[in-house]
Amino acid sequence: MNTDPNARKAAEAVDEARLWQRQMDMAAIGALPNGGVNRAALSPEDIRARKLMIDWASELGFEVSTDAIANLYVRRAGRNADAPPVATGSHLDSQPKGGKFDGAYGVVGGFEALEAIHRAGIETERPIDVIAWTNEEGGRYQPGVMGSSLYVGDDAHEKMLPLVDTDGIKLADALADTLASTPGLPTRTFGAPMSAYVEAHIEQGPRLENANNTIGVVSGIQGLFWFGVEVIGDEAHAGTTPLKGRKDALKAAVSMVAALEDLMADETDTVRFTVGRFECHPGAPSTVPGRVYFTIDFRHPDPAVIARLTAGIAPTCEANARNCSVSVSPIIASAPVDFDPAVVDLVRASASELGLTHMDMPSGAGHDAGHIAGLCPTGMIFVPCEKGISHNEAENATPADLAAGSRVLAATLVKLANR
Amino acid sequence: MNTDPNARKAAEAVDEARLWQRQMDMAAIGALPNGGVNRAALSPEDIRARKLMIDWASELGFEVSTDAIANLYVRRAGRNADAPPVATGSHLDSQPKGGKFDGAYGVVGGFEALEAIHRAGIETERPIDVIAWTNEEGGRYQPGVMGSSLYVGDDAHEKMLPLVDTDGIKLADALADTLASTPGLPTRTFGAPMSAYVEAHIEQGPRLENANNTIGVVSGIQGLFWFGVEVIGDEAHAGTTPLKGRKDALKAAVSMVAALEDLMADETDTVRFTVGRFECHPGAPSTVPGRVYFTIDFRHPDPAVIARLTAGIAPTCEANARNCSVSVSPIIASAPVDFDPAVVDLVRASASELGLTHMDMPSGAGHDAGHIAGLCPTGMIFVPCEKGISHNEAENATPADLAAGSRVLAATLVKLANR
Repeated sequence: MNTDPNARKAAEAVDEARLWQRQMDMAAIGALPNGGVNRAALSPEDIRARKLMIDWASELGFEVSTDAIANLYVRRAGRNADAPPVATGSHLDSQPKGGKFDGAYGVVGGFEALEAIHRAGIETERPIDVIAWTNEEGGRYQPGVMGSSLYVGDDAHEKMLPLVDTDGIKLADALADTLASTPGLPTRTFGAPMSAYVEAHIEQGPRLENANNTIGVVSGIQGLFWFGVEVIGDEAHAGTTPLKGRKDALKAAVSMVAALEDLMADETDTVRFTVGRFECHPGAPSTVPGRVYFTIDFRHPDPAVIARLTAGIAPTCEANARNCSVSVSPIIASAPVDFDPAVVDLVRASASELGLTHMDMPSGAGHDAGHIAGLCPTGMIFVPCEKGISHNEAENATPADLAAGSRVLAATLVKLANR
Repeated sequence: MNTDPNARKAAEAVDEARLWQRQMDMAAIGALPNGGVNRAALSPEDIRARKLMIDWASELGFEVSTDAIANLYVRRAGRNADAPPVATGSHLDSQPKGGKFDGAYGVVGGFEALEAIHRAGIETERPIDVIAWTNEEGGRYQPGVMGSSLYVGDDAHEKMLPLVDTDGIKLADALADTLASTPGLPTRTFGAPMSAYVEAHIEQGPRLENANNTIGVVSGIQGLFWFGVEVIGDEAHAGTTPLKGRKDALKAAVSMVAALEDLMADETDTVRFTVGRFECHPGAPSTVPGRVYFTIDFRHPDPAVIARLTAGIAPTCEANARNCSVSVSPIIASAPVDFDPAVVDLVRASASELGLTHMDMPSGAGHDAGHIAGLCPTGMIFVPCEKGISHNEAENATPADLAAGSRVLAATLVKLANR
C-alpha cells in the first residue's frame, strides 16, 4: 500500500491507554452521578477542563494561546512558523446532562494525535493546532457553535457579550472570568487563515455500530431546518359541544403530523423528520383544545430534496387544518455543508491504509467543522458510540474505537501538514 | 290546551326583570374583570352568595336550613309538612374563571320560580325546596358534585374532610367557617326522601341556539368515560438517528389518535370524543420524544354504544403503537343516567302549554341532578347560552330565555307538588 511512512509512524504512536486515561480525567470534571458530565461553557468546570488541557500541553512544550471568545489553541510548531496551520479540535463544554465523549473526544483525541506525532519525532512543514472551541452546545448561552462561528465571522462578538444565562449571569462576565483564570496567554485574532481542519467526533448515531464499521468518513453536514407550527381552534366543552361544530386544534394538528409523515416518507431512510415539541392548550381532559404548537425538525444532505420538502410543509399543514387556522414559521434554516473532497479522500485513504473498516456518511448533527468549512478545506472523522446514544449520561464509546479515530486523525494531520 | 291553571298562574308570575337583577346581584360576588365569576366552594365569596340567598328567603318568610356539607335549603311550606318535598336547585360555586350562569341560574331561577308560586298565592300539598348544593364544580376541592353525592350517599362525608386546596386549606376548616358564617340554621340529615327533583341549567352547548329552541327537555345525562394513554418509546437524536430504528412516542401517539377518530366516528354526531391533554416528553425540538401521555374523554347516552367503544380503545391504541409500548388506564367511568319519564313528560308538557319552543336532548355535562336521580324521580330544564360557551368568562344568556326556563320550572314544580 502506498502509505506515507510518517503518517503510519504517527498513527502507530497513538497510545490507546493514555488516550482513555485522559478521556476519564476530563470526564471527572463536572462528572454526574449516572456516568455523564455537566460542563457548561465558561463555567468553573469549563475552566478546570481548560487548565487540564494547558497542563498537558505544557508538559510537551506546546504553545498555548487564546482569543476574545476564549477559544483555546495548542500548537505544535512546524518548520515554517509563518505557514497557516493544519488544525483539529472540537469542544470541551457539554449538554447539561451530557456524555463523556461528545466534543471532549475531538479535543482529547486530537491532543493524542498531536502527542503521537510529537513522540514519533515527525517534523511537519506547517504547525498543527488542537483547538477547544468555546460553547459548541449552546446549553448555557444560545446560540451554540459560538467559538467557531465567531472565528470565521459567521456571527459577531459584540452580539454575544450581553447574553444572559438562566442564573442571570452575563456571558461578558463569565468570559472575563474564564480568560482571567489562565493569565498570560498570547491572544490570537479571529479569522487567521488555516490550511485545513479535521475534527474527530463520536457519531452520535447508530450507523457505524449497525454496519460494524470503525471509522465514519464524513462527507459533510446535512441541512437542518426547524419550523414552528401554531394551530388555533376554539376551546369548547367536551361533553356538550357536538363534534361537527368544533374547531379542535389537537385533532387538526394530529392530521397535520400524519400528513407530514407522508410528505417526508423516504425509502432510502435519509430524511430525518422529527416532531419533538408538541404542546396542547389548555390541556384539560374535558376541554376541546383551542391551541396546539408543534415543531418540525427535518434534515437532509441534498439541497434539491430540502427545497422540495421545505416547499411542501406549509401546504401540507394548511390542507389538514380542518376548520382551524394554522401558521408555519421558519426557526432555523441551516444549509447542508459539503466537506472538501481532497480532505475527505485523505481521511478515507488513512483509514484504509491503517486497515480500519470505514464508510462514507454525512453528519446528522451540527459541529464546529460546519463553520470552519467556510474558511478552509475541512473534514471530519466519526467513531462509533454505543447504540448511537448521545446527549445523554449513558453515552459510551470503546477505548479501541477512540484510539482508531485518533490514528486516522494523526495520519491525516501529518499528510495535510506536509501537503 | 289542558293546562293546570295553578301551573299557568305560577309561570305567569315569573318576573323577568327581578330574575335578571338577582342574577346580576349574584354575579357581582366574585366578579372577574372580563364579565366572569370566581366563586370557589366554601370560600368567602361562596359565603357571601349564601347570605344573599338567605336574605332573599327571609324577605319572603321561607325557612332556611343546611346540613353537614353546607348544602343550603330554602323551603316554601306545603299543606302537608310531613310530605317529602319537591325540590329544585343547582350550585353557587363556579369554575376559577367561570361564567355568571353555570349553576347560579339553577339556584336563582329556582328561587324565582318559588317566589312566583308564592306571589301567585298558590298552595301546594308538598313543600317545595330550592337547594344550593355545595361544590359542584370541584374547582377547589375534588371530587365535584360533592353536596349532592353526599346527600344521596354516593360518597362519604368523612372522606371529604381531609381534602386540601392548593393553598393548603383543609376542606374541614373551610366547611366549618362556612357553617359558622350562618349561625342558628336548622340542620338536615343526608338522604331525607324527596318526592321529585327538577334542576334548571344553561345548556353549556350550542344545540338549543342552533335549533332556535328556548327549552331543552333533558332526557338524562350521557355516560362519561376518561382514559389515560401512556406511550413509551426511546429518546434519540433527531439528526443522527435513522427513522427506521426509532421508537418515536409522538408519531405512535399521533397514529393512535387518528385511529381513535375512526373508531369514534358517528354519523349521528352523538358521540363526544375529545383528546384534551396531550403531553410530549422531553419536548425538545431536536430530540425524538420518548414518552407521550394523552387523555381520552368520550361520552354517549347509550350503554350499548358505550360498551362497544370502550372495548375498542385499548386494541386501537395497541394496533397503532408501532414499535413503542402503550398502556391504557381508565380514570372515570360514569354510566349514563336516564331521567324519570314522568318528570320528563311534565317538563315537556309545561313548555308546550306555555307556548315555548323546545326539544328533547341528553345533557352533555354532569350535574347534581345525576346523583339525585338515584334518590327520586328527576328531570332537568335547559335554556340556551350564547354560542354554547360555558366554563368561560364570556358565558352569556338572555333575560328572556332565563325567565322562560323559570316559567317552565314553576309550572312543573306546581304540578309535582300537587301530584
